[in-house]
Amino acid sequence: MSARRVVLAYSGGLDTSVAIPWLAERGWDVIAVAVDVGQPGDLHEAVGRALQLGASDSRLVDARADFVDRFVLPALQMNALYQGRYPLVSALSRPLISQVLVQVARETGASAVAHGCTGKGNDQVRFEVALGALAPDLEVLAPVRDWGMGRDDTIAYALERDLPIRTTKSSPYSIDENVWGRSIECGVLEDPWAAPPEDVYEITQDPRSASLAGREIELHFEAGVPTALEGESLEALHLIEAVGKIAGSFGFGRIDLVEDRLVGIKSREVYEAPGALSLIAAHQDLENLTLERAYLLEKRKLETTWTRIVYEGLWFSPLREAIDAFVSSSSDAVTGDVRLRLGPGSCSPVGRRSPHALYDHALATYDEGDSFRHEDAAGFVKLWGLPTKQWAKSRV
Amino acid sequence: MSARRVVLAYSGGLDTSVAIPWLAERGWDVIAVAVDVGQPGDLHEAVGRALQLGASDSRLVDARADFVDRFVLPALQMNALYQGRYPLVSALSRPLISQVLVQVARETGASAVAHGCTGKGNDQVRFEVALGALAPDLEVLAPVRDWGMGRDDTIAYALERDLPIRTTKSSPYSIDENVWGRSIECGVLEDPWAAPPEDVYEITQDPRSASLAGREIELHFEAGVPTALEGESLEALHLIEAVGKIAGSFGFGRIDLVEDRLVGIKSREVYEAPGALSLIAAHQDLENLTLERAYLLEKRKLETTWTRIVYEGLWFSPLREAIDAFVSSSSDAVTGDVRLRLGPGSCSPVGRRSPHALYDHALATYDEGDSFRHEDAAGFVKLWGLPTKQWAKSRV
Amino acid sequence: MSARRVVLAYSGGLDTSVAIPWLAERGWDVIAVAVDVGQPGDLHEAVGRALQLGASDSRLVDARADFVDRFVLPALQMNALYQGRYPLVSALSRPLISQVLVQVARETGASAVAHGCTGKGNDQVRFEVALGALAPDLEVLAPVRDWGMGRDDTIAYALERDLPIRTTKSSPYSIDENVWGRSIECGVLEDPWAAPPEDVYEITQDPRSASLAGREIELHFEAGVPTALEGESLEALHLIEAVGKIAGSFGFGRIDLVEDRLVGIKSREVYEAPGALSLIAAHQDLENLTLERAYLLEKRKLETTWTRIVYEGLWFSPLREAIDAFVSSSSDAVTGDVRLRLGPGSCSPVGRRSPHALYDHALATYDEGDSFRHEDAAGFVKLWGLPTKQWAKSRV
Amino acid sequence: MSARRVVLAYSGGLDTSVAIPWLAERGWDVIAVAVDVGQPGDLHEAVGRALQLGASDSRLVDARADFVDRFVLPALQMNALYQGRYPLVSALSRPLISQVLVQVARETGASAVAHGCTGKGNDQVRFEVALGALAPDLEVLAPVRDWGMGRDDTIAYALERDLPIRTTKSSPYSIDENVWGRSIECGVLEDPWAAPPEDVYEITQDPRSASLAGREIELHFEAGVPTALEGESLEALHLIEAVGKIAGSFGFGRIDLVEDRLVGIKSREVYEAPGALSLIAAHQDLENLTLERAYLLEKRKLETTWTRIVYEGLWFSPLREAIDAFVSSSSDAVTGDVRLRLGPGSCSPVGRRSPHALYDHALATYDEGDSFRHEDAAGFVKLWGLPTKQWAKSRV
Repeated sequence: MSARRVVLAYSGGLDTSVAIPWLAERGWDVIAVAVDVGQPGDLHEAVGRALQLGASDSRLVDARADFVDRFVLPALQMNALYQGRYPLVSALSRPLISQVLVQVARETGASAVAHGCTGKGNDQVRFEVALGALAPDLEVLAPVRDWGMGRDDTIAYALERDLPIRTTKSSPYSIDENVWGRSIECGVLEDPWAAPPEDVYEITQDPRSASLAGREIELHFEAGVPTALEGESLEALHLIEAVGKIAGSFGFGRIDLVEDRLVGIKSREVYEAPGALSLIAAHQDLENLTLERAYLLEKRKLETTWTRIVYEGLWFSPLREAIDAFVSSSSDAVTGDVRLRLGPGSCSPVGRRSPHALYDHALATYDEGDSFRHEDAAGFVKLWGLPTKQWAKSRV
Repeated sequence: MSARRVVLAYSGGLDTSVAIPWLAERGWDVIAVAVDVGQPGDLHEAVGRALQLGASDSRLVDARADFVDRFVLPALQMNALYQGRYPLVSALSRPLISQVLVQVARETGASAVAHGCTGKGNDQVRFEVALGALAPDLEVLAPVRDWGMGRDDTIAYALERDLPIRTTKSSPYSIDENVWGRSIECGVLEDPWAAPPEDVYEITQDPRSASLAGREIELHFEAGVPTALEGESLEALHLIEAVGKIAGSFGFGRIDLVEDRLVGIKSREVYEAPGALSLIAAHQDLENLTLERAYLLEKRKLETTWTRIVYEGLWFSPLREAIDAFVSSSSDAVTGDVRLRLGPGSCSPVGRRSPHALYDHALATYDEGDSFRHEDAAGFVKLWGLPTKQWAKSRV
Repeated sequence: MSARRVVLAYSGGLDTSVAIPWLAERGWDVIAVAVDVGQPGDLHEAVGRALQLGASDSRLVDARADFVDRFVLPALQMNALYQGRYPLVSALSRPLISQVLVQVARETGASAVAHGCTGKGNDQVRFEVALGALAPDLEVLAPVRDWGMGRDDTIAYALERDLPIRTTKSSPYSIDENVWGRSIECGVLEDPWAAPPEDVYEITQDPRSASLAGREIELHFEAGVPTALEGESLEALHLIEAVGKIAGSFGFGRIDLVEDRLVGIKSREVYEAPGALSLIAAHQDLENLTLERAYLLEKRKLETTWTRIVYEGLWFSPLREAIDAFVSSSSDAVTGDVRLRLGPGSCSPVGRRSPHALYDHALATYDEGDSFRHEDAAGFVKLWGLPTKQWAKSRV
Repeated sequence: MSARRVVLAYSGGLDTSVAIPWLAERGWDVIAVAVDVGQPGDLHEAVGRALQLGASDSRLVDARADFVDRFVLPALQMNALYQGRYPLVSALSRPLISQVLVQVARETGASAVAHGCTGKGNDQVRFEVALGALAPDLEVLAPVRDWGMGRDDTIAYALERDLPIRTTKSSPYSIDENVWGRSIECGVLEDPWAAPPEDVYEITQDPRSASLAGREIELHFEAGVPTALEGESLEALHLIEAVGKIAGSFGFGRIDLVEDRLVGIKSREVYEAPGALSLIAAHQDLENLTLERAYLLEKRKLETTWTRIVYEGLWFSPLREAIDAFVSSSSDAVTGDVRLRLGPGSCSPVGRRSPHALYDHALATYDEGDSFRHEDAAGFVKLWGLPTKQWAKSRV
């Protein structure tokens, strides 16, 4: 193990770019690792730049398929929406990136890993808890949290050293993106009363210029996993991208939320997640058709718990694994088709069918052929209401 | 108390109209009571018809304001959406109608009350549990559940007796409507794969013919109650109607759901609730800004419980009252403004502000003026992750 | 399938004995099945008597090992105590007996199964829900619920027909017993203010005549299953019996409870479960040492749910299976030893150890060698209290 | 406001005694406040000593009645037992002491408050969160956490300065005690496998020398509050003390627990709480008789939440207040009598009665006079089991 070698989670952005010389100046041998989880931009070029910035080694890891299989699809099966709205986009990639960092640290004999998060966000927690669970022996560095430089200081630092950093289009926003969606923070968005300007959105079109006629799409699920779009079988990664593109073209999937961060503050967050929100709507709808009532009720509660702990960085925890086991025990029933209707800014299920449907027309219909014994209901109602009736009597 | 006098919850529809002669033929003196909770149609005319059908007395009770104050507004404060979708429209009116029935029974010395529900729906439960809690001494009759006639038999019964019943526009659907929304069942909707045809909708326009440009509306809340629209103070009843009209004109508020009924079956339900869904979206958003994290987390769980038990007929239960007390203890903080953006089939909050906002710009910002101590985070993260780390170590 | 053959759950007691001729008189070919789940009494003799009573066939099934493995041990892993007190004794045997009934029905081509429960207890629900899940095609008969005879009528019925029924020691109590405990109802116990008389107890000695000196016992668990007592390996069945005998000799394990039955009434129940309560105390204590905090917190909640649904008859439900899966995902950690101290009427853990202990002396100690960084705490506390502080500020 | 005046929570023990000169040496004007919450020892003498130690002012506040009314009785109504075992003894006094500190700070114009907790316990969190909520403007000092001295260092510090500190009987344990119980930590107890030696206990007698015959006591509750013992009306404070004395004389109320601390570690804790555990057993039993089933089920869940957040320092939080409001809405029903049977190390309810009892003999009995309609049960069971049956059918 090399006492002063560190594996840095490198995005190619300002902060992690500056972190390379900053760490190197403090005597670290820096290995920069960029993990492809579906973000845009030229990662190859960024990886090349890391060497110029002073990294001794620089790697690009394509983790998209792994990300989808082990993080995104479980989140879909949980209908994971933090505060009922946010599909955990960044919260899902952090544990995966942590795993990659640890793997590279093991291969290269590094004694430390580093991330570029500040001290007031959730991501520092997600990285550090994951790293603590995966490799309690590795030191964790958080240069951006430690150096105490604001954005202007950081740029000045880069200019001083003439670092090859792209600050061409100085976006006022802080962005994170992957296969499952995109988050936008800072700038004017820090005023929760101000509506997000149209320029914050990249992967959803303005709904005011979308097709009013709308369209329907049909999705097929096998055991909770989407496997076909419009009858065509697709790998999950491509299906998610395809659904995202369609839904995004209708301006569906925008989220504007006052969010409770784990570190104790409220922040205003804006997201785009057209694919995630469409697929969750469809998946949840199919569950309503195929899962038993009492199980479903408890699953909905555990979804909230799962989502919260993943948001809070506890991916590698026994509770997350246990809730996954709970869900796996019935997920094979979630097989069938859902038809979604998309319009400008909207997406709703309008039809669903399944070989495992618990909907029984003979029981549900009010027509002839009704097989429900109405006289059973009288007894049911009587006993159902008995505790309330006894309570009411005792209050007189 | 008159041994054979019954107070009937009378809607003017086929079933409760036929119930009048059916009960009278069985020796009951029938008092028909129509309760106005915001449904459409000429209730005065219906009440007149009840006498022709054989009722000894017939009354119209305007309960709209009471309905809004004691049932709808509490449901709004709970963001009550059964299965995350259905705003409890009918489930809210049943306990109120039960109260009116009991009141009239007390005034007229009746020994029984009657409702027109079948044996497989939720409404029988809601009526009977409410009545058992309010007046355990009164007998409860459920003629429609007992007589075992299908729809055709009922019509034949009416024709035989030449009853003055309106069957002009024989709708294939079974409808219930009030201030808070409208439910549609039966007919083609019993196939959950078939998309609801456009003709089931009455209070929402086809979103495909709505204005693509959309519009924004601003709502003001005081202690969780909406009190002004676009700056104009309105009584809650009128505000709900006004918001419903605007949102309905955009085709927003349609719900298509496979629902778990209390009596143990799954059914396919279609609803329209443009006002309810808009107001809940706004209210929930304002709560995110003004309520403390741990409280909010627990409130969200109790919302699910409240909604389920009200759906299941337990309005007059100590649990419902207790959850109301839980919510009342913080609801004064839910004061402020929310701006909603409406488009075809869509409605989203895009801004919110409050004198009680817990959002603190100085804590949340990444700019200068940041008052959050980043070094606190390092200690926090370490202890936060400690249990997971210990667990991981013990698994090696 | 024989149209008029029924398989009866036969206990040898008054009700199910009378049920044989009662069913036979109504044209049924009755097969009596006694299932040994650890109850006392001569089941061989009882099975012989069934033929005299008119059964065409009569069987004894020794299901004790199966009962322990598939029902009792899972209940132990759930620390299952309904209302925090009752270890589900009868609720665990009903689904197993139902399975045996269905199996015999399949072997003998019977078209129906029958149980001897009344209409106001929980056991009818447990039998009928289990049977509906296991064999929805079989008719379920409930002769005792249907015949409407009180105890005196039943005895008169037996005397009239000169049935070979034992009413020698006419106990005023209604008893159910199995490996996991014993329940006692009726008679003077129906007054919840009256203390249970000493004569209701059979498997626990009067604590007032127990050894004041007490004793300690040491239990070993492997993956949540007790496998050794005082260092000696034992099959679970024998270990449970042995622990029950020791704890019972101290008068430990008596339960006196006002219980909420599923059918909507409160009843007063008395139980003895010395083995169950001792083992649950030990198991729970070992979990506190070996399971991670957040997981444990959620497990405790799910224990309550599991216990309630099993009490309410939903053993063969997807929710029960899912909670089992949740628990299985971490149960291998629950390995180690617990020392229990028994005294008159009391039993408490006084020591526990495990190779998987999450207790870390270096972290927990206040002595030298403390490895906990106290300075981390300051940051933790600050962020932990931040939401409350913001709330307090906003209330001024 | 005096810039360098601090109000110290002073117990008279080693740490807070040493804290006085330590703070004074750092330029603070120290006001020592001892809060009487029912701990033993001569507080007057201790308060006098504080002046000798260098405090400029020293006060004794008798907060016992306030402690019982505002903290202990609410905890009793919640049946508050952390991890099902620990009645929150210290967790209840910390918020009250914080209130007293703030009050004295306001009176004396102090700019800071101080507590004597270390960095690895729960009490630092309870103090600092409470203080942050009550007085966000006051600085909070934690000298013991900051100075980094171990026990030996602290003693050396005292000897060097010749401080008037009592170290006569150098107890190996760390103790906290109040009206509601007593906690013992450290020394041999840090080995969770070692049974607690008899010398750790002060307020419970060795059960092996208690009266084998036992005794019964009768408690009366009004609206959840204990108001009489053996028919004699008593103030809550005196009743708690009297019950504690009786139960303690039987050796009942000892707790030995591996506990999950908020700061992320497991610790082994020993407590004595004879009064608390007896009263909670009685209160809970009376609730089972008087509270409605669905409400009770939810209350039991919220009890766990309330207990956890109070343990975790969130007394002054909107969630705690909201749960109190939930409970208050039904607590008036919890009125009546409970008879407890005490024996060596044991305490169990054996009888309970109430004017608000929901137990209805006519419904519960199996005798004549049974008013429960058994035929209602058949319909109830059928619908209750329907979802499970449909699920089972769909799995074939």
